[in-house]
Amino acid sequence: MELSSQAKDKPAVRIRDDFWDFYMNLVRDTVIPYQWDALNDRIADASPSYAIQNFRIAAGLAEGEFGGMIFQDSDVAKWLEAVGYSLASHPDPGLEQTADEVIDLIAAAQREDGYLNTYFTLKEPGKEWTNLQEAHELYCAGHMMEAAVAYYEGTGKRKLLEVMCRFADYIDSVFGPGPGQIRGYDGHQEIELALVKLYRVTGEERYLRLSCFFIDARGEQPSFFTEEWEKRGRFSYWAQKKTAASDLSYWQAHEPVRLQTAAVGHAVRAVYMYTAMADLARLAGDGPLLEACRRLWHNTTARQMYITGGIGSTHHGEAFSFDYDLPNDTVYAETCASIGLIFFANRMLLLEPRSEYADVLERALYNNVIGSMSRDGKHYFYVNPLEVWPEASQKNPGRHHVKAVRQKWFGCSCCPPNVARLLASLNDYIYTVSEQTNTVYTHLFIGSEAQLDLACGTVKLTQESRLPWEGTVRFKVFPPAAASEFTLALRIPDWCNGEAALSINGSAVTYEMQHGYAAVTRNWAEGDEVEWKLGLEARLIGAKPEIRANAGKAAIQRGPIVYCLEQADNGSPLTAVTIARDAELDARYEAELLGGAVVLESKGQAEDGAAWEDAPYRPLDSLPQVKNVRLTAVPYYLWGNRGQGEMTVWIRTTEGQG
Amino acid sequence: MELSSQAKDKPAVRIRDDFWDFYMNLVRDTVIPYQWDALNDRIADASPSYAIQNFRIAAGLAEGEFGGMIFQDSDVAKWLEAVGYSLASHPDPGLEQTADEVIDLIAAAQREDGYLNTYFTLKEPGKEWTNLQEAHELYCAGHMMEAAVAYYEGTGKRKLLEVMCRFADYIDSVFGPGPGQIRGYDGHQEIELALVKLYRVTGEERYLRLSCFFIDARGEQPSFFTEEWEKRGRFSYWAQKKTAASDLSYWQAHEPVRLQTAAVGHAVRAVYMYTAMADLARLAGDGPLLEACRRLWHNTTARQMYITGGIGSTHHGEAFSFDYDLPNDTVYAETCASIGLIFFANRMLLLEPRSEYADVLERALYNNVIGSMSRDGKHYFYVNPLEVWPEASQKNPGRHHVKAVRQKWFGCSCCPPNVARLLASLNDYIYTVSEQTNTVYTHLFIGSEAQLDLACGTVKLTQESRLPWEGTVRFKVFPPAAASEFTLALRIPDWCNGEAALSINGSAVTYEMQHGYAAVTRNWAEGDEVEWKLGLEARLIGAKPEIRANAGKAAIQRGPIVYCLEQADNGSPLTAVTIARDAELDARYEAELLGGAVVLESKGQAEDGAAWEDAPYRPLDSLPQVKNVRLTAVPYYLWGNRGQGEMTVWIRTTEGQG
Repeated sequence: MELSSQAKDKPAVRIRDDFWDFYMNLVRDTVIPYQWDALNDRIADASPSYAIQNFRIAAGLAEGEFGGMIFQDSDVAKWLEAVGYSLASHPDPGLEQTADEVIDLIAAAQREDGYLNTYFTLKEPGKEWTNLQEAHELYCAGHMMEAAVAYYEGTGKRKLLEVMCRFADYIDSVFGPGPGQIRGYDGHQEIELALVKLYRVTGEERYLRLSCFFIDARGEQPSFFTEEWEKRGRFSYWAQKKTAASDLSYWQAHEPVRLQTAAVGHAVRAVYMYTAMADLARLAGDGPLLEACRRLWHNTTARQMYITGGIGSTHHGEAFSFDYDLPNDTVYAETCASIGLIFFANRMLLLEPRSEYADVLERALYNNVIGSMSRDGKHYFYVNPLEVWPEASQKNPGRHHVKAVRQKWFGCSCCPPNVARLLASLNDYIYTVSEQTNTVYTHLFIGSEAQLDLACGTVKLTQESRLPWEGTVRFKVFPPAAASEFTLALRIPDWCNGEAALSINGSAVTYEMQHGYAAVTRNWAEGDEVEWKLGLEARLIGAKPEIRANAGKAAIQRGPIVYCLEQADNGSPLTAVTIARDAELDARYEAELLGGAVVLESKGQAEDGAAWEDAPYRPLDSLPQVKNVRLTAVPYYLWGNRGQGEMTVWIRTTEGQG
Repeated sequence: MELSSQAKDKPAVRIRDDFWDFYMNLVRDTVIPYQWDALNDRIADASPSYAIQNFRIAAGLAEGEFGGMIFQDSDVAKWLEAVGYSLASHPDPGLEQTADEVIDLIAAAQREDGYLNTYFTLKEPGKEWTNLQEAHELYCAGHMMEAAVAYYEGTGKRKLLEVMCRFADYIDSVFGPGPGQIRGYDGHQEIELALVKLYRVTGEERYLRLSCFFIDARGEQPSFFTEEWEKRGRFSYWAQKKTAASDLSYWQAHEPVRLQTAAVGHAVRAVYMYTAMADLARLAGDGPLLEACRRLWHNTTARQMYITGGIGSTHHGEAFSFDYDLPNDTVYAETCASIGLIFFANRMLLLEPRSEYADVLERALYNNVIGSMSRDGKHYFYVNPLEVWPEASQKNPGRHHVKAVRQKWFGCSCCPPNVARLLASLNDYIYTVSEQTNTVYTHLFIGSEAQLDLACGTVKLTQESRLPWEGTVRFKVFPPAAASEFTLALRIPDWCNGEAALSINGSAVTYEMQHGYAAVTRNWAEGDEVEWKLGLEARLIGAKPEIRANAGKAAIQRGPIVYCLEQADNGSPLTAVTIARDAELDARYEAELLGGAVVLESKGQAEDGAAWEDAPYRPLDSLPQVKNVRLTAVPYYLWGNRGQGEMTVWIRTTEGQG
């Protein structure tokens, strides 16, 4: 492997934004403290976590047995990672002290040889690395590496980083193609992308090579997982009995990763892997790997993604099913999978700035991801449905996984800390820079202050945005004094219908189109004001006919925000409601609605159920006229915050008036 | 319990009908021989049955172990029952000899004390009656009782009847409210209705009382099933491990049967029980039980039934879910459940002739039931979907249970022999008579010759019908010579739109409406010709708005036949196709189509998928016009006989032209 470019520090960006400040504050003031309580089993009526207690026992500071999931350590890791991001933008000595104590615990739980995993240390010592397929050992290691990097970058403290480098070194000695090494890989991809981060802050190329090894070993024949399963007597940890050989596509291990063309199997595993693949394709200039990334990106986002940015349509294995199979009611669309999709999009943007990556990133962020969390920051959806009928969620076992209300905490609580770490690091997703082309790419329109290192020097950029409610974004540019020429590239979002007008210091400016970005190269003057005006009309969106679940229906989107109908505004059943294909959508800002949001209203029609009496089926020609109704659509991310009721993103349409 | 009326012999009816002769012949010439081969494990590539071999081993005529499901005996019983019906209408010495040999086997497998069940005899001797909840012992007994009655009525031979009376006597000694008796009931209702049949042919009131006991014990507190589960150490036969206490509603054992208001739990269990309840309500003049039957009928058919007569909408537990939850794609609609619904309807008609019972009976028969069998009689659907996307059946685990092609035989092959026994006894469902009111009720319009015992004497009736393709039915009446006045009541089917004209000997006759029947009382003359002309327009049918899965859609029905669109005629995806709400439906008889059938054609429209290119979502205003297409609908019961492809019963509608 040749390394084409040395890793760079990330741009320094601080968010100051009307819309996002709420989330930043929520994560800092509520989510991180709440999750700390959860990790310490202090949330009443929620499933216990055991996560901190496990470390305490492993560190020799408490007595007891391991509790929780086999991968419970990763919840502590994700929490610490979020704390690291949060401290970077908002120092908090109390929080930092708590985190330092956790890190001391972790260090104390580490074995002499570098190994670190409370499950195996407490419950199955001696069985380390014997069930990679099921035991999440490298997965937990990966999350702790991510935490170590984030905490180091947020605080400058190296203790956890050193702990995890020791563990990485140990893993590097255990795994690999050499004699006596395990030619295997983890059942849950994660360490691959984490090793890239560890490489970024340490410059240690062994970590990058190890990540490459894990990617390339996966899917090779004979299958490591099948051989391992034979070795452990075909016994399954999860089933607690002997099982048949598994379908390796669940783990994306059915064929070599580079040959894969369609997203299959467990969705979170898949996108974590794709993220690492894109990292490696970039850092190693690996063309075939880049091609695989492009293919998998395209399949995932053009054929297996909900309009909310949700992926993984079946709860059986929390998995992808197949092209265009996107049921709205039996949906999975796990929060973590959309977060992984955001990681993947971010890495593709680092590889090749094309607006389609950022379009998807923004879609997943503003809809699936922030919709998964309640406004109070203490309740979460794991599954993010596009259609909810609360009675079906209770009474139809095929929909039990679709919850009609957000839950406090989960036995397997991967999603809430994942949301926290994503939101706490959202500043990292707004810009990327290309040193080669001396360009700043603006992917997200989020009010912020940034320092961006270009070939010409450090550019300062402030962004003011009223998105998602208003379409005008303003930048102030502070170029380096010495060399002020660079390119500012602004994303032309898929939702603006091509209405994207640029002006600088009040004068309209033409721009060059670069893969969906408006690029302007000039000698910038201190304080140049850039205005970027985007079309923000609410529109009815249709789905490709192959997506059978949405046939004859429309979703409403305004800017990046997907809307939905809720029973609270539109009655029940929501399927009785229709909207004309050319309906006018009236936008109105409602300051009182859940922190303030633009609500859309429209004429619609509804069937009158009363006339049916008791008959389930009647000739159409005997049915009464529909009645006119006023429809109210609210942002999808706010659904389910006003009591339990039906919700739908896709609305039945009728022909327009022409 | 007071018995209000003595059991009567069934009307003697022989079918001679263009449409149904095919099925009668298919059952006789193909299904019964094919299933005999299946019971003897002679079908290549099909799951083995073991059923006959089990009896052989239990009879001491072979060595080996029990094979197949714990309730495998019931397949032999259902086959014998079908043979009994078939021999009644069509003597066949070879078949009768085979059946006699099977009966000899069964008799030889019976224990000295009367007990009969090959699973417990071979595999768990000594464990009899210790797991009624799971082991189907009384269920198997019930099926063999039904076989005994059918075989006795078909051949006059009493051997199996005597075997089963001995077993019934033994069961009667084991179960009951007395000291030392088991106050329990079976996990799968069946014996309740079978004991009523045994009572009908033997006049033995103990059998009726035992049936009543089983009905009344169910759902009483403390729960027998819960106590039994405790006694067997909470061990589950099916899970092969300890389990938590079960949700008793699966077994309709959550509350006393008489108090139940909604159909819940396993659908076949439910309707078999309702059938027995209606039998007992009638025979014992039990008003509260009748009320329960009416409530459960209404809930089942008005709120939980598909337009095809399918019931049980979830494959989880093959069960009812809740009111109006009738998904077309994740559907269950098991064949056996519709057969049980037909039994229930039949018993309700015996209780109180109201056309709604026969409407449902006919709907289930002409659609769900005959649709479950291939035209060759050798392939069956267990699940009868209203919408099929073959790729989803393969690749979405939530739809694996929905097969896109009929299967050869099932490991749990309850459905194929159930179809055989229903079709072989279809002659019993055409008429009922009321001695009290001296009335012949005609429920089904199926060409036939009947001898019906009324108060006035024996009426002979021939029926000529071209249904389901033509709407005119003709009867010839041959009254008893002595007293020729009686009432002929003809069902006015729900599908005729009130167009039902009666004429006698060429002259129009007015009739009295009696609960959906056209009743004519007169002194009939030998050879009187009755013509019954029914509206048979193809119509678009809508579903009540609460049935969310069908919102904005229509099904097509012509007479009793529900239609569907198949990919073979209309391309893919079928969801891209729409029909106007006022579309004209042109009927055309296609002699070449799978035995001949009326095919319907209509104008329709289809979305043009090509214009979408790769985008999954696009603004509606950017989408191309739909194109006009010609739609072809074929009878639902014929679907899936022309290769694998998409199918849908419910079609998206657009506004009509007014």
